[in-house]
Amino acid sequence: MSNFWVRTLAGIVFLAIMVFALIWDRTLFACVFVTVLVQSLREFYDISLNKRFRVQRFLGLVAGGASFILVSAHCFYGWDLRLLTLALIPLLLIPASCLLLPSREHFGDLAYIYAGLLYIALPISLSPLLMMDGIVFDGWFMLSLFVMIWCSDVGAYCIGTAFGQRPGARKLAPDISPKKSWWGFWGGIVFCVVAATGLHFLTWLPFPLVHCIVLGVIVSVFGVCGDLFESLWKRHFGVKDSGACIPGHGGMLDRFDSSLVAIPMACVYLSLFNLI
Amino acid sequence: MSNFWVRTLAGIVFLAIMVFALIWDRTLFACVFVTVLVQSLREFYDISLNKRFRVQRFLGLVAGGASFILVSAHCFYGWDLRLLTLALIPLLLIPASCLLLPSREHFGDLAYIYAGLLYIALPISLSPLLMMDGIVFDGWFMLSLFVMIWCSDVGAYCIGTAFGQRPGARKLAPDISPKKSWWGFWGGIVFCVVAATGLHFLTWLPFPLVHCIVLGVIVSVFGVCGDLFESLWKRHFGVKDSGACIPGHGGMLDRFDSSLVAIPMACVYLSLFNLI
Repeated sequence: MSNFWVRTLAGIVFLAIMVFALIWDRTLFACVFVTVLVQSLREFYDISLNKRFRVQRFLGLVAGGASFILVSAHCFYGWDLRLLTLALIPLLLIPASCLLLPSREHFGDLAYIYAGLLYIALPISLSPLLMMDGIVFDGWFMLSLFVMIWCSDVGAYCIGTAFGQRPGARKLAPDISPKKSWWGFWGGIVFCVVAATGLHFLTWLPFPLVHCIVLGVIVSVFGVCGDLFESLWKRHFGVKDSGACIPGHGGMLDRFDSSLVAIPMACVYLSLFNLI
Repeated sequence: MSNFWVRTLAGIVFLAIMVFALIWDRTLFACVFVTVLVQSLREFYDISLNKRFRVQRFLGLVAGGASFILVSAHCFYGWDLRLLTLALIPLLLIPASCLLLPSREHFGDLAYIYAGLLYIALPISLSPLLMMDGIVFDGWFMLSLFVMIWCSDVGAYCIGTAFGQRPGARKLAPDISPKKSWWGFWGGIVFCVVAATGLHFLTWLPFPLVHCIVLGVIVSVFGVCGDLFESLWKRHFGVKDSGACIPGHGGMLDRFDSSLVAIPMACVYLSLFNLI
């Protein structure tokens, strides 16, 4: 099978799993997203962390996975939120376990454990809070945010390819991601705002139109920031793809890099206006 | 004034401020502890972070301070906990702001921003949750935990000085903290358990005696872990004191290194047994 078909098929399967997980069932959502969290975090640690920190890496993965599972259990099944203190155990064992390290070499790398938790595990762990409408599981809002990110990516790709690769077209961040142009950046915003407007009229985004438009701009701009930040991180460590778990598409973290910054920022905006 | 008197006086003033903040008034508590948080975090960043990350460092301090203030406002004045999403803004601006960095040099240092937030800001930000008994401000439980840590330190110092410095006495972690001996470690535990038992009979620790004894062991052991972890961190970056903000006593982080691990661990234990 040629690379093109592998890539297309993997893309469709990935998309189908994502959409079903978001709209079908809370348990399916929890299973899919805990996998996304743990796999993204593993890739982040594989990129950054020295192999010596095996125990600390494991504790980081447990802390991240446990936070998500306990927030999900609270939102979906009414478990006491105080159980979230359980996730503190692996987190506090990280400094304690360092005393068992055979030497102090690369000790500063330990910070990557914490960085992964705040950059990857925190946003994903907060996601179940957005998945309930009263006592009904309702992922249409979250799905809308993902649709907006995908539209932004498609817009950036189309407009960027059509206008941004001509000689003289200004690049967005030539040091970090040589292909990205300002044409693509503005194209992404336009597509994302159009998508947000469409989703508003579809009633998937149940907010006043003006807020939907602002949301489109926020999602697109911070999506690009998230994408560039991950590229910067990979370049710093001399890595091209974060992993290879989705055939033809690279790693899990590569697929969620925009969302990790854009979706929380969108939710902060909506929360400031008391809309969620 | 000789160094001894400066040190003694500063110690007494520091202790008085701490005790008053814990038992007197919620606003005083919030002011003192937000200072402790921000100052400890500043020292942590001064130790670890390259000077180029001025903006990101500032965002980290704002995120840490804001989390504490918003949790306090929730616990003490009934503000909506959803306002905590505000603390996400500086946190999410950290990756976004990195795109403005003039070069990618030392880019991995950025992880220290996140590490400080989870290691220092998270435990201190959770502390207001322990400071209310219904609608009454009640810091006696937290004060008891600090008293236990101080007793453990005194015990470790006395027993360690008396028995641990003799030739042949085994050292706890000669690479990290050459003076600490196993004698001091066990002495700290004994003093801490005795303190916990005393506090139980004083009714400051309103839990069954057996839990108070276990609490004494946990506080002492994880206090030592926290202390050694901070020493390890300082040694890695070639620093002796974390700062000099308390005359004769070094930095703020040096004063709270044990508490940052021991107090959350004690609370996780109590929470597991439904005691808090």
